[in-house]
Amino acid sequence: MSKMETATDITEVNDGSIITPIGFKAAGVYSKVKKKRRDLGVIYCDVPASAAAVYTLNKIQAAPLQVSKESIETEGKLRAIVVNSGNANSCTGKQGLADAYEMRNTAAETFEVPDHHVAVASTGIIGEKLNMEKIVPGIQSLQPQSDFEDADQFNEAILTTDIVKKHTCYETTIDNKKVTFGGTAKGSGMINPNMATMLSFVTTDAAIEPEHLQTALSQVTNKTFNRITIDGDTSTNDMAVVMASGLAENDSLTPSHPEWNKFVKALEMACEDLSKKIARDGEGATKLIEVNVKGAATDEEAGKAAKQIVGSDLVKTAVFGTDANWGRIICALGYSEISLDPDTIDIAVGPVVTLKDSTPVDFSETEAKAYLEQDTIVIDVNLNMGTGTGKAWGCDLTYDYVRINAGYRS
Amino acid sequence: MSKMETATDITEVNDGSIITPIGFKAAGVYSKVKKKRRDLGVIYCDVPASAAAVYTLNKIQAAPLQVSKESIETEGKLRAIVVNSGNANSCTGKQGLADAYEMRNTAAETFEVPDHHVAVASTGIIGEKLNMEKIVPGIQSLQPQSDFEDADQFNEAILTTDIVKKHTCYETTIDNKKVTFGGTAKGSGMINPNMATMLSFVTTDAAIEPEHLQTALSQVTNKTFNRITIDGDTSTNDMAVVMASGLAENDSLTPSHPEWNKFVKALEMACEDLSKKIARDGEGATKLIEVNVKGAATDEEAGKAAKQIVGSDLVKTAVFGTDANWGRIICALGYSEISLDPDTIDIAVGPVVTLKDSTPVDFSETEAKAYLEQDTIVIDVNLNMGTGTGKAWGCDLTYDYVRINAGYRS
Repeated sequence: MSKMETATDITEVNDGSIITPIGFKAAGVYSKVKKKRRDLGVIYCDVPASAAAVYTLNKIQAAPLQVSKESIETEGKLRAIVVNSGNANSCTGKQGLADAYEMRNTAAETFEVPDHHVAVASTGIIGEKLNMEKIVPGIQSLQPQSDFEDADQFNEAILTTDIVKKHTCYETTIDNKKVTFGGTAKGSGMINPNMATMLSFVTTDAAIEPEHLQTALSQVTNKTFNRITIDGDTSTNDMAVVMASGLAENDSLTPSHPEWNKFVKALEMACEDLSKKIARDGEGATKLIEVNVKGAATDEEAGKAAKQIVGSDLVKTAVFGTDANWGRIICALGYSEISLDPDTIDIAVGPVVTLKDSTPVDFSETEAKAYLEQDTIVIDVNLNMGTGTGKAWGCDLTYDYVRINAGYRS
Repeated sequence: MSKMETATDITEVNDGSIITPIGFKAAGVYSKVKKKRRDLGVIYCDVPASAAAVYTLNKIQAAPLQVSKESIETEGKLRAIVVNSGNANSCTGKQGLADAYEMRNTAAETFEVPDHHVAVASTGIIGEKLNMEKIVPGIQSLQPQSDFEDADQFNEAILTTDIVKKHTCYETTIDNKKVTFGGTAKGSGMINPNMATMLSFVTTDAAIEPEHLQTALSQVTNKTFNRITIDGDTSTNDMAVVMASGLAENDSLTPSHPEWNKFVKALEMACEDLSKKIARDGEGATKLIEVNVKGAATDEEAGKAAKQIVGSDLVKTAVFGTDANWGRIICALGYSEISLDPDTIDIAVGPVVTLKDSTPVDFSETEAKAYLEQDTIVIDVNLNMGTGTGKAWGCDLTYDYVRINAGYRS
């Protein structure tokens, strides 16, 4: 599929959300696990939705991930995802696993669906037991609805130190049927996903079997959720889940379907939009940073280099300080363990070319500073070696990151 | 060699420095490359000293590293190391390489030694040309002497954003001759050495051929300089150099010398002391953090896990915030890509056990906070799996790190 087709065939839906695809409802309530703000929510589907998920590669995996994996592996279908914030239910031993199962069972009873049609997710403090006396009645009180406001309450209920709620929505046509993708996510800190992400939930009404949905999600994750970093820390609770209701009534999607690429692209656009929103709302962040690397040996190497640059504390503080310090960019490139020719590198910070063929360019500091004062910063790197391209997203490192994390538990 | 022997045979020399081993002199002057403070220095040896070095693994390597490598590879001997601060002479193209050669040649003429007996090193801003009109007369003005004060002026001349000058000195006996090790280093930011380090210089009067000195240095570097991290950024200019004058008149050391292990241990103690001093003086740091991992499958895995923990921004901010947030410690352990059993992990923050067999321990927050208010924080992790042990050092992440790096170039 050409870029032209992408641009015309897939459209952003500005007021869309997780409940926009046909068949989905949501709710978010305040269970009192947190001191204030909603902290418990559900995404519900009217029919068994094909489900796919990716999980953190951290070897310490929280209890809810184990339970969700078991649910999804049973039949590849989900009716509900229940999520709490304020407590990650991680490093909580056997009791934690029992609590995650109790969350699942309570939701299954509440929504009258089989246990294995429920996934659970938790985010928040590590190492403290869930307060089930609050969680259980909280789940029982969930009443999923299909209004934007209900979805927005879910979006709020999954946040931790995030400042803004995140939602995304794209639509396209497949087999001449309108197919919609909705999504939400929470991010903020402990974010350096690897084969998975913070918590991200995507809904779609596309018809697709679980195994093909998993193929699409895994492919997309590598170019979106795995390309963002806030602080280089990969959480124990990261998870991205997609549910596909099938109610758009397209022919069931497989990699040989003529519009498979369009489906994957639309899913990618939804996931990329969530990824950028997570990066922009990183703890303490004032700016979204996008790094584009081209001319690399492979796409994978370009992506790796882009993520190393966007993850460098020195690059992040330079952007916060509106300093076009390209020396830190080339330094991070140099330790990214990709193939490069030290003599052919171009670097630009927005419109300002700072390095050409590895030779410093005499640029206007005033122009560079003015560019860096904006809230979206694009860094372009060309290795002039091959045809590999890749992007990554992150945020600046600020006083507020330190303030937030020096006092998180208290 | 047992630990008992180590403790009794190798002694720290409190007022010792790079000029304490027989045959070494030093000087540090103000060449006006920097706005203030000394910025140019030399370590000089009365005789051709056996030399060994380790260099950054960053694929972008600064010009002085190329020149120093060429010098050391020629004969394995050095008479002088000339170092400037304020400008890294990195990403400066052909002119930068020519300038590094001119630094070397000027020093060779000034000290009347062959070109290849001179190494050069630079540290500071990347991508700006060296001001040779200041550097050349600066080198010509260097008058190395053997007083502690001269060494101290060298120690000052190599600093960038470091706050304190660093020196170390240990002595031992080999073949009943007193053998002394002196050292200095600069660190502060862009520090995550890998097979090399920021700038570290060690002198010794031991007699040893270059190849064996290289063996010892490489072995020691993996347990010292490569085990510190300030911000995860590996610089383009990292280098550690050892010079051995041979004037202690011991029998020339080889791995089959009966006191080889003692020699390596004394070198390790000098390098470890410099490493800890670099970590403690990290940009904006208020505390030295030491992480000890034991019970790992191998020593290598223990060291890898220790470095991952000490490099976690979330662990670093928690220590700054005097918060015994062990969840962040186990999280970093989990993504360190080592073998572990999620159910057998112990974690202690100083005297405070926070996790035992992966189960949270009900500890006194008051006691933990009191411990974390000290200026040296030790985190002990036991994987209870194997016999591998390893250490790493770092520092807390503070508001001052952000302040320093948001305004470095200006």
